[in-house]
Amino acid sequence: MEFRLIDRLQALTAQARDDVRLGIGDDAALLAVPAGQELAVAIDTLVEGVHFPRGTAPADIGWKALAVNLSDLAAMGATPAWALLALTLPAQPADAQQDLVDGLAEGFSQLARMHRVALVGGDTTRGPFALSVAVHGFVPPGQALRRDGARAGDLVFVTGTLGDAAAGLQRLASAADSDEEKRRAGLRARLNRPEPRVAAGLALRGRASACIDVSDGLLADLAHVCTASGVGAEVDAALLPLSSALLGCCDAAEACDFALSGGDDYELCFAVPPARAGEVQADLARLGCGATRIGRIVEGTGVRVRGIDGQWLMPTRTGWDHFPDETARP
Amino acid sequence: MEFRLIDRLQALTAQARDDVRLGIGDDAALLAVPAGQELAVAIDTLVEGVHFPRGTAPADIGWKALAVNLSDLAAMGATPAWALLALTLPAQPADAQQDLVDGLAEGFSQLARMHRVALVGGDTTRGPFALSVAVHGFVPPGQALRRDGARAGDLVFVTGTLGDAAAGLQRLASAADSDEEKRRAGLRARLNRPEPRVAAGLALRGRASACIDVSDGLLADLAHVCTASGVGAEVDAALLPLSSALLGCCDAAEACDFALSGGDDYELCFAVPPARAGEVQADLARLGCGATRIGRIVEGTGVRVRGIDGQWLMPTRTGWDHFPDETARP
Repeated sequence: MEFRLIDRLQALTAQARDDVRLGIGDDAALLAVPAGQELAVAIDTLVEGVHFPRGTAPADIGWKALAVNLSDLAAMGATPAWALLALTLPAQPADAQQDLVDGLAEGFSQLARMHRVALVGGDTTRGPFALSVAVHGFVPPGQALRRDGARAGDLVFVTGTLGDAAAGLQRLASAADSDEEKRRAGLRARLNRPEPRVAAGLALRGRASACIDVSDGLLADLAHVCTASGVGAEVDAALLPLSSALLGCCDAAEACDFALSGGDDYELCFAVPPARAGEVQADLARLGCGATRIGRIVEGTGVRVRGIDGQWLMPTRTGWDHFPDETARP
Repeated sequence: MEFRLIDRLQALTAQARDDVRLGIGDDAALLAVPAGQELAVAIDTLVEGVHFPRGTAPADIGWKALAVNLSDLAAMGATPAWALLALTLPAQPADAQQDLVDGLAEGFSQLARMHRVALVGGDTTRGPFALSVAVHGFVPPGQALRRDGARAGDLVFVTGTLGDAAAGLQRLASAADSDEEKRRAGLRARLNRPEPRVAAGLALRGRASACIDVSDGLLADLAHVCTASGVGAEVDAALLPLSSALLGCCDAAEACDFALSGGDDYELCFAVPPARAGEVQADLARLGCGATRIGRIVEGTGVRVRGIDGQWLMPTRTGWDHFPDETARP
């Protein structure tokens, strides 16, 4: 490693954990998984210009690189423990690089501290700006939240609100008055600083029949659950949880489109047998994120959406529309 | 994930392992570390144009992305088990992409099968061509080969031969007659298909006092061992193991420079107390890679090199030279 970025990141993200037997600085870290726990592992990459716009604050990038991975652990009901960071940076003047690395470390470590995640290894290379983070967490055997357990009759929920991040991305550059600017700042915070629903994932263990985090967009991710579980799902657009910030910056139809198809929400979408729905909602309300019932699991395949007016919608290139007249279809 | 590359990679790299409780296809993999074992984890990135030249065969890239990581596990004396792959690919026509992915999977899986490594998770994104691989292995508590255990009086060894990969990279494009072309093909194979010294690493457990894999170049990596151990080292250039392919394509001084400073060898460099040197050499000879004594650990700091003529050398911009007259130094 030609430059000591990982050392610097380590200093800024230090976390005392007894289960880290040897941290950064050797060929590999040595870690002890607690007896009786399975290891949950995931990896995700952020590329400049693809996953975050050029010019995004380094601290936001550092936060988000860890957040999208912790969101995967949350969706499994795992308790986060360790992270690896592979950082690719273009050649640049030393002081610019130091500012960038300090910013990345600040955002990464802020979130890492909240979840007691230790950075245990990494790699720094020259190249186009990108970060790959691998995370490790623990889950008792048999208790992980998988995608394949949803059953017809289960109710479908999501935590928090949907569509904010996608709206924040689309409205990033547009000019605005002061009130609108405040709303947009809220949306951009959802885009740049997603909060992985770790506590919600833990609360869902033993209760949700299936779970996924909403990264590609609600319908795409719910479709993954349906495919894995061999079921279909119906979503009621009128039930979608929309923030006042979102509703303040676009009309209801547009807000619905963001909520259904916009990605980067990092909320949890999960299925629960009706008998457990009440206790789950109460618990997630106590955790602060809440959970909103948005539909149900049905026999069959695929995800269908009922519009605000009760009519079934179909996807269009720019969003969702009523089914056209059957005779008009090719 | 917009395209199902990881599924395809999984199909091509399938490995039955009882300790994989849930593989690719959910938000995270679920894994069981054997009782009484510590987990060794490492991550490394390869970027096109930085770690491999544009035009490198996809199968070579897939092999190398896993090899450089298994080399880290080898240097810890860990038994490889699982890998994660984060793959970033530029937009390209579907058939070109399929060829690329098939090639990557072929090389990756060839090496994975040799070491029973299961691909348990991944991520595919759009962007400049790069691969990050994270690997996981097992090692009994207290038996890992660390960098910080070298003591003055220990002998320094390397497995295999040094300098081939660096020479292969430098001579990649040059024209050559048929005999020379064969030699260069051998050097390029060392560059493109490094063989992680996993069995050697296991054989060194409980015997080597310190170990590292040679990725940045012998002297740079041995210096890491010295820093971590609080010692110095002396290397004897006359003892460096050089392949006939290397000696056939350059003179002795150039070959020495490649061996001392060229990276990408992925041999193991390790320190052993003299009393154990004989048995270690015999065991590594039986494993096929052999081990050559190249120097010794001394009190102090830093790495010094004695040239073929017995005089101490100093680094220059292009390689190594005799110490100039003391009075000539600034």
